[in-house]
Amino acid sequence: MALKEKGFHRIGWARRPEVRLRALESGALDEAAETAEEAVSRADITVFALPIPQILRFLDLCAPHFRPGSLVTDMGSVKGVICRKAEEALTPRGIVFTGSHPMAGTEKSGFDNAFPELYGNADAFLTPCSLTKESHLQTLEELWKAVGIRKTVRLDPETHDDLVAHTSHVLHIVASALALTILESDDPEEKARRFAGCATGFRDTSRIASSNPAMWREIIENNTPANLTALKNFEEKLRFLRKMIEKGDYDGFEREFARGKELRDSWVAYKAARM
Amino acid sequence: MALKEKGFHRIGWARRPEVRLRALESGALDEAAETAEEAVSRADITVFALPIPQILRFLDLCAPHFRPGSLVTDMGSVKGVICRKAEEALTPRGIVFTGSHPMAGTEKSGFDNAFPELYGNADAFLTPCSLTKESHLQTLEELWKAVGIRKTVRLDPETHDDLVAHTSHVLHIVASALALTILESDDPEEKARRFAGCATGFRDTSRIASSNPAMWREIIENNTPANLTALKNFEEKLRFLRKMIEKGDYDGFEREFARGKELRDSWVAYKAARM
Repeated sequence: MALKEKGFHRIGWARRPEVRLRALESGALDEAAETAEEAVSRADITVFALPIPQILRFLDLCAPHFRPGSLVTDMGSVKGVICRKAEEALTPRGIVFTGSHPMAGTEKSGFDNAFPELYGNADAFLTPCSLTKESHLQTLEELWKAVGIRKTVRLDPETHDDLVAHTSHVLHIVASALALTILESDDPEEKARRFAGCATGFRDTSRIASSNPAMWREIIENNTPANLTALKNFEEKLRFLRKMIEKGDYDGFEREFARGKELRDSWVAYKAARM
Repeated sequence: MALKEKGFHRIGWARRPEVRLRALESGALDEAAETAEEAVSRADITVFALPIPQILRFLDLCAPHFRPGSLVTDMGSVKGVICRKAEEALTPRGIVFTGSHPMAGTEKSGFDNAFPELYGNADAFLTPCSLTKESHLQTLEELWKAVGIRKTVRLDPETHDDLVAHTSHVLHIVASALALTILESDDPEEKARRFAGCATGFRDTSRIASSNPAMWREIIENNTPANLTALKNFEEKLRFLRKMIEKGDYDGFEREFARGKELRDSWVAYKAARM
């Protein structure tokens, strides 16, 4: 949708024919292909906008069909697994691959929930690998600018995965553990009191526990080492705070809490300045 | 403010004379007392609206001055420590004490940020102790209804403290640990990437880490056993999720995440139905 009238001929494929038709009729595509293989065989640039397991599968399926010298990218929220699969499937077919990760999205999915302004003001990570060529990297950057991405940032796949594990993925594990701890009790009366007693503090801290379980399973499954690192870091910090409370070192606890507040407040200010 | 023209003669004391005067002039009080002891000596009902350490201090200071047969309550967010202090300071002076905890508040403080609608639609916990009498308990319930509280719930102090530890207090420790883990790094480039990479997921999950450190130190300090229990429960649940990821039991992880989502979604629906 966001590439409309930006100088691209857009060939699209989705699994269900009715979706392909609707995308074509609504002007989100210039041409609908019957198969993925057919679509990629005619493309200068291929973009996989699929769940992570499907990206891996389609890299294999389409490997014999990409045009030599063409650029392939994806939009998955993990990059190491995908770049490794690309290197395995596409070397040495003369196909250029770079992972992408636009930092934009909603909790919704499906054609009905798509809108062209999604990428406006967001950044995108590009994760070059052994299959990447500089000329194609610039083409990719222009593609992302064309859909509205404000800035592209180049990062190696492992550093990317460690970063998103800390800034996004591990938060979902923590929020889920909170929901499971707070809202459950063996005692039905206690559970009822918990339901009554939770308010905006719980609502916000646990919000992302209401995310899509299958999607987050796929993300964690494909970014396990970085998530375990992030979890370990978090558990260590929590234990550190707990020990201060256990020892009665409330001055220390208050000092740490104040430091966390200062860090977060500076982050909020940093984000506001970038608006 | 909320008791204005509800049939009460309101005598108030605050530490600073200028605040007492402003409260009187604005109509929030009918009478301003020079000292706390003077105010309580003339009261049928005394309400302590103070930080927790000050509630404890003023229970001691005012103990010889309350009118025998009068009712004393407080509004602190922990009840065990306060009820025990009341029992220690007021037995057997013939003074009736019941703790209160209105589930209402903002992150702001001070006279300038007070408004009479604060209690509208909120519930209040009442925590009877050995000093409580049924007749006075009903008077207290009428007092809270008069300021706009929708429903009063009687709970013993220990059950109350365990409940608020789980539904509110422990969330602040978790949010603080998250902020301290995610926004800090020994590597300045990594720290810059973390700042850039955090978005709405981090913003919401860590929001309450920006709360007032002194206030939350006081709450944790005065509700330590319940908070350590809640922390232990949370850490166990997080460890349970981590072990599934470590073992590659992603089906199990997805099942637990789905259960957490279901619990939270049912809580959201429960809250919406009560609006």
